[in-house]
Amino acid sequence: MATLLAPKQFSPVEDAENIKRACLGFGTDERAIISILGHRNLFQRKLIRLAYEEIYHEDLIQQLKSELSGDFERAICHWTLDPADRDALLANMALKKTIPDFQVILEIACVSSPEELLATKRAYRFRYKHSLEEDVASYTEGNIRKLLVALTSTYKYDGYEVDGDLAHSEANILHEEIAGKDYNHEELIRILSTRSKSQLTATFNKYRNIHGTSITKGLLIDSTDDYLYALRTAIRCIRDPKKYFAKILRNAMKMEGTDEDALSRVIVTRAEKDLKEIKELFLKRNDMSLEEAVARDTSGDYKTFLLTLLGHQEN
Amino acid sequence: MATLLAPKQFSPVEDAENIKRACLGFGTDERAIISILGHRNLFQRKLIRLAYEEIYHEDLIQQLKSELSGDFERAICHWTLDPADRDALLANMALKKTIPDFQVILEIACVSSPEELLATKRAYRFRYKHSLEEDVASYTEGNIRKLLVALTSTYKYDGYEVDGDLAHSEANILHEEIAGKDYNHEELIRILSTRSKSQLTATFNKYRNIHGTSITKGLLIDSTDDYLYALRTAIRCIRDPKKYFAKILRNAMKMEGTDEDALSRVIVTRAEKDLKEIKELFLKRNDMSLEEAVARDTSGDYKTFLLTLLGHQEN
Repeated sequence: MATLLAPKQFSPVEDAENIKRACLGFGTDERAIISILGHRNLFQRKLIRLAYEEIYHEDLIQQLKSELSGDFERAICHWTLDPADRDALLANMALKKTIPDFQVILEIACVSSPEELLATKRAYRFRYKHSLEEDVASYTEGNIRKLLVALTSTYKYDGYEVDGDLAHSEANILHEEIAGKDYNHEELIRILSTRSKSQLTATFNKYRNIHGTSITKGLLIDSTDDYLYALRTAIRCIRDPKKYFAKILRNAMKMEGTDEDALSRVIVTRAEKDLKEIKELFLKRNDMSLEEAVARDTSGDYKTFLLTLLGHQEN
Repeated sequence: MATLLAPKQFSPVEDAENIKRACLGFGTDERAIISILGHRNLFQRKLIRLAYEEIYHEDLIQQLKSELSGDFERAICHWTLDPADRDALLANMALKKTIPDFQVILEIACVSSPEELLATKRAYRFRYKHSLEEDVASYTEGNIRKLLVALTSTYKYDGYEVDGDLAHSEANILHEEIAGKDYNHEELIRILSTRSKSQLTATFNKYRNIHGTSITKGLLIDSTDDYLYALRTAIRCIRDPKKYFAKILRNAMKMEGTDEDALSRVIVTRAEKDLKEIKELFLKRNDMSLEEAVARDTSGDYKTFLLTLLGHQEN
């Protein structure tokens, strides 16, 4: 469930006007912007952006970019973007880092539904005049490339029909390869990249039933191997995205110096989806709530904005 | 350009009624069916099928299947299907042959536009509750599998923007791998499967300019190697589909015993697209026209139907 608190009644024109007012004059009124955009759902934000364009002949995102700065600017701009376009942007930013951040690509490829991934790929083509797969292949190499290109390419079946015999036989194939430390074998990639989520869930469950251990455990042997890490990440994103994201949040705030990119990414992309459950999982595994952790690790408008998306009620 | 001759004015209800009439009574009136369906475009056939369902609560395709038989039945049923659904069916039939017919998969993957391929993948998922990629991976193996899964997976960029430097460098990569007989290298598959058609055309042209020979020539060394044959087929489908299909038609009728599957497939799938140019290319390379060859190699209603799709005017 979502953490976002959005009113049922709203006026896109009034919102656009109030945002404009907050941007005019000496100094921007960030609080006003947060109190509007931080309480509007996807559809409402879309209408505000359209109204803004209509009234001021200016793109709202461009306006926000010119008025705001730093982590707050990035987070609120990403929040205001259409989700497919945002994922395309996040993917491109991740690829263009000095060391490409394949975790972002894995999240987009493995957590999204086939239709969401397709929408992201359309948005990517539109923005960058390349396909996502093409750029993933250009910016990565070796086994990670094979895995990422395969996972971003496929348009999977997304129904609930599951073949139990197949789950059994593929659980054994996976076990053989993992036990044989033959991690690079194409079967591993083929199974993860072509089978539907329902089918893979059945396969992972069979794996645990037959072999008495989870598939990710078998891949933990060498924690410095990027490819094994990517495989584990893919499996975790497919098997239990909420648990995965709770862990990402934990890691983002465990480090010396917060990883704001990861923190913003998870909160912005999940606030309208399943951030409520992610918050609960976070609380179970940590000695403080997600709100407390965010409040401790961030400050200023950035902190206010993230807490707003987390459903924090101001007094 | 299309060879199909279809009237501007038509009535889906009258057509449905006339088809029903042709099916009733003693013996089916195949000529009547051909004279209707063989002269209706995609949109018109769709409306006839809807009208038929509406009036008789029966699927037109099922009716045709029960009334007709053999190559004629298959060809007219494929013709009546929605193209994406037809390609999904053709792909599945090709995969389920004792020796999977990877040529059909390559045609669908490499000749279709990204949107057409996507529509086929949607239709495939709907029909078979699996993704196309998943079944391609299940029914093939080795290098051919790698190539086919990669080509069917990607959702390519389909614009006209081309990077000349990239074409140059990738032409050299391709040449190195082909000259080094390192055909299985992932770079070959990566380039073919992720780059857009426009980009690949530029790369193939650069290849010829730099190395003085076409890329397919370099792959001709071992004509019995299935993987090399598949690579050549993919490149030919990307580079010049019309020339490729003219050759397929030629081969289909050169054999002892015509290859009706290939003959029907090309005529049915291209009649509304580019069969006119394919006919011209056929005539240039053979000592008879495509109509003459079809008339010589086929007979009965099947022959009448194919000639109708070829734009043959009855006297």
